[in-house]
Amino acid sequence: MQDERLTQQALTDMDPAEFRRLGHQVVDWIADYLAHPERYPVLSQVAPGDVKAALPQTPPTEGEAMDDILADFERIILPGITHWNHPNFYAYFAVSGSAPGILGEMLTAALNVNGMLWRTSPAVTELEEVTLSWLRQMLGLPPDFWGIITDTASVSSMTALAAAREHLGLGVRQQGLAGRDDLPRLRVYISEQTHSSVEKAALLLGIGQEGVSKIPTDAEFRMRPDALEAAIEADIAAGWRPMAVTATVGTTATTSIDPVPAIAHICRKHNVWLHVDGAYGGPAAIVPEMRWVFDAVDQADSLVVNPHKWLFTPIDCSALYSRHPHVLRRAFSLVPEYLTHTAGSQVTDYMDYGIQLGRRFRALKLWFVLRYFGERGIAERIAHHIEMAQEFAAWVDASPDWERLAPTPFSLVCFRARPAALADDEAALDRLNDALMARVNATGKAFLSHTRLNGRYTLRLAIGNLRTTRADVAQTWDLLQEELAALVASA
Amino acid sequence: MQDERLTQQALTDMDPAEFRRLGHQVVDWIADYLAHPERYPVLSQVAPGDVKAALPQTPPTEGEAMDDILADFERIILPGITHWNHPNFYAYFAVSGSAPGILGEMLTAALNVNGMLWRTSPAVTELEEVTLSWLRQMLGLPPDFWGIITDTASVSSMTALAAAREHLGLGVRQQGLAGRDDLPRLRVYISEQTHSSVEKAALLLGIGQEGVSKIPTDAEFRMRPDALEAAIEADIAAGWRPMAVTATVGTTATTSIDPVPAIAHICRKHNVWLHVDGAYGGPAAIVPEMRWVFDAVDQADSLVVNPHKWLFTPIDCSALYSRHPHVLRRAFSLVPEYLTHTAGSQVTDYMDYGIQLGRRFRALKLWFVLRYFGERGIAERIAHHIEMAQEFAAWVDASPDWERLAPTPFSLVCFRARPAALADDEAALDRLNDALMARVNATGKAFLSHTRLNGRYTLRLAIGNLRTTRADVAQTWDLLQEELAALVASA
Repeated sequence: MQDERLTQQALTDMDPAEFRRLGHQVVDWIADYLAHPERYPVLSQVAPGDVKAALPQTPPTEGEAMDDILADFERIILPGITHWNHPNFYAYFAVSGSAPGILGEMLTAALNVNGMLWRTSPAVTELEEVTLSWLRQMLGLPPDFWGIITDTASVSSMTALAAAREHLGLGVRQQGLAGRDDLPRLRVYISEQTHSSVEKAALLLGIGQEGVSKIPTDAEFRMRPDALEAAIEADIAAGWRPMAVTATVGTTATTSIDPVPAIAHICRKHNVWLHVDGAYGGPAAIVPEMRWVFDAVDQADSLVVNPHKWLFTPIDCSALYSRHPHVLRRAFSLVPEYLTHTAGSQVTDYMDYGIQLGRRFRALKLWFVLRYFGERGIAERIAHHIEMAQEFAAWVDASPDWERLAPTPFSLVCFRARPAALADDEAALDRLNDALMARVNATGKAFLSHTRLNGRYTLRLAIGNLRTTRADVAQTWDLLQEELAALVASA
Repeated sequence: MQDERLTQQALTDMDPAEFRRLGHQVVDWIADYLAHPERYPVLSQVAPGDVKAALPQTPPTEGEAMDDILADFERIILPGITHWNHPNFYAYFAVSGSAPGILGEMLTAALNVNGMLWRTSPAVTELEEVTLSWLRQMLGLPPDFWGIITDTASVSSMTALAAAREHLGLGVRQQGLAGRDDLPRLRVYISEQTHSSVEKAALLLGIGQEGVSKIPTDAEFRMRPDALEAAIEADIAAGWRPMAVTATVGTTATTSIDPVPAIAHICRKHNVWLHVDGAYGGPAAIVPEMRWVFDAVDQADSLVVNPHKWLFTPIDCSALYSRHPHVLRRAFSLVPEYLTHTAGSQVTDYMDYGIQLGRRFRALKLWFVLRYFGERGIAERIAHHIEMAQEFAAWVDASPDWERLAPTPFSLVCFRARPAALADDEAALDRLNDALMARVNATGKAFLSHTRLNGRYTLRLAIGNLRTTRADVAQTWDLLQEELAALVASA
């Protein structure tokens, strides 16, 4: 009997006392890390294959001590991390998984519940409803915007487009798209600046690249409503069926804001689903002075905003809103016997509204973040990021060796070096700026990414990290100038 | 200047010292929780709306103290949790997010990196490659099985089917599916017992419900290869194009194992993509005596195994393997300028192989779990779960008032009460077992779910939790008998 109990003991999880000891150790490590993420190079300096080469090629047969595993985390994994927490992380979109969000993730991992049905943890469903209602109010959206949390904006937009496809009333759920002679070809309208995830969603949904119409943008990289309307009308005349338009509030390359009021008007006129991608820019609507970025968004059929981008929530957490939850349900709901239950229509089973059956308890971290910072605290932080970006943009504008390549409505600055010596040699400027970015990133002191605007190699400085201060931005401006001087001197 | 610094201080994240204090508090809570999850009712006892009613309807304007928020977590959220950690959680599939996995999640949340590209954290990509290679070896799969981590089996299977669609060579990526007169209708073959997520994926991909052919199963709920072959041949004769077959190793209702060798033979003969769903059952192949469940799986084109199901990893973590990563890439890759880089073909950018651009660092928790328990420790735990289920099945078989309704190849027992008094009154037996399950679940002492097999209401007892002991299973057997006796007495 004693032997058997010993065996059973050995076949369970780690002893809770051991977890307590290690958990405290990990919390101490995290606290030290969060106090000084700038101790590490922001862009990882490892070469391809370095991390892999440091790890055994075969799995361990026997269990290992957790202390050894944690030591390997510091020794092998950490050098291979690009530090998104570093105050000088300005690449892509800078983000913060704030401390309250981390505490939320700890509890989510410990509870380890799957919120596929209301009954599999009622608090998962109801807290998701409540936090998305709070966020909706903070964003100034009307009460008929129903919400669901997904993992990423890619999945949120795909879900929205799947609903748009179902909304056509062409029997796609039942009959599919292939081999039918009663279907028109389907068209999704995006702009030249729309995020690639929307096009990817269209591929997945069987729309195809030819079904994705990329509408030209104006001088400020915004979708041209006249071009959109002309494209829709030409397509209808040619027998295509418009399925959805995606307008973006804060595009990825430049954070341009598509003219949602005009686009919404066109969508209503032609009865086309309007999806608004506010994954990055949306949270800015929490700032009273920035509320205008969501003008006419209340007329959208669906909208995505990512708390894991500019709302201080650890990755992943994306909020999808729609005025037509019943259409999402029609597109996705399939309830096998083993998931039926008697709670019935009183409750929401979120599994019915998306592709994923399994659902992490993501609302918990969002709830912690919204409460800890409060609406005002969030607005102040976002406003502060925008201020710092405006200040950097002003430095660029004031300097003869630099130029800005796009407006700065949010907290991203698009710019390039343009020293007088190279003046209008576009090819040389491209090479210069590519080399400049590589030099800056190689220092490990700051990390910027790039895009191309009107064919020009463009540096992007995105501010969105809670740890970024005006001093950090100023130092990065100095660093850029030093590296430019060194480059020009060596040329 | 001092004022400004104060303002900047106020606009950052929580003070790290405060995080340290709260982090320790949360770790202590988790350690206490993991020591005794059985203190809570396993199935949450709240009524619909209870959690929502306890929360404010409007968001907080000012930030709140984290201590208050954590107190509300205990007061409001916890009663609304169904405790998947409870040793008597036997519903759906029982899972464990083990302590090493929780430590991994803590670090993942703290690092908050997005592994979309190799360079955005090389360790995320390379550790994913290494852990999936380890898992592949543990499962006995050949080296040409390339792997990617997704969030859920739903997404893994959808990704596999998207690759299968692309593999047809019908120009779907370019031209889509709709409104083309050069396409056949497409068919995906599943069994009557295949998980609903595969059908859902087919809907999303534009195959439609009519394009999903549900092959009949044999007396043990396994796909009938003769029926599959007949269906494929009839479809081809009628002008359909077979796109993919999904075989399941461990179906959701009964954990039946489709005859993969025979199905693989048919797929090769007709050149159809074979996707194997081992989301639940796959990890059992780590147990030497269970290795046979993956017979012929090396001939599959894709395979999903979920570490968050029976491999002690916190939700979410699904492993998708395929012998054709280039096909996944062709189905999904879209690289905008801002994500281009010079590391080139030396490295993997996992964003190119799936729908999601944003990628959490999920490999870290899997690495912790595989190392902490080791291959032998994992095999012993899974074998122990299977043993306990066999023991319970034997009790059912030996009792005149109960009967088993399906074989028990893994750790799920399908059974029902069948007291002599009701004998062959199927309708009465359905009502009895439904009432019995409701009574047992209402006690908060155990949580079972149900399915229907050959029309019969069937109870499911799934063992997969690291905390479940033989004593727990025995007590649950006693509880079932007591509640049955009470029900029969009151009838």
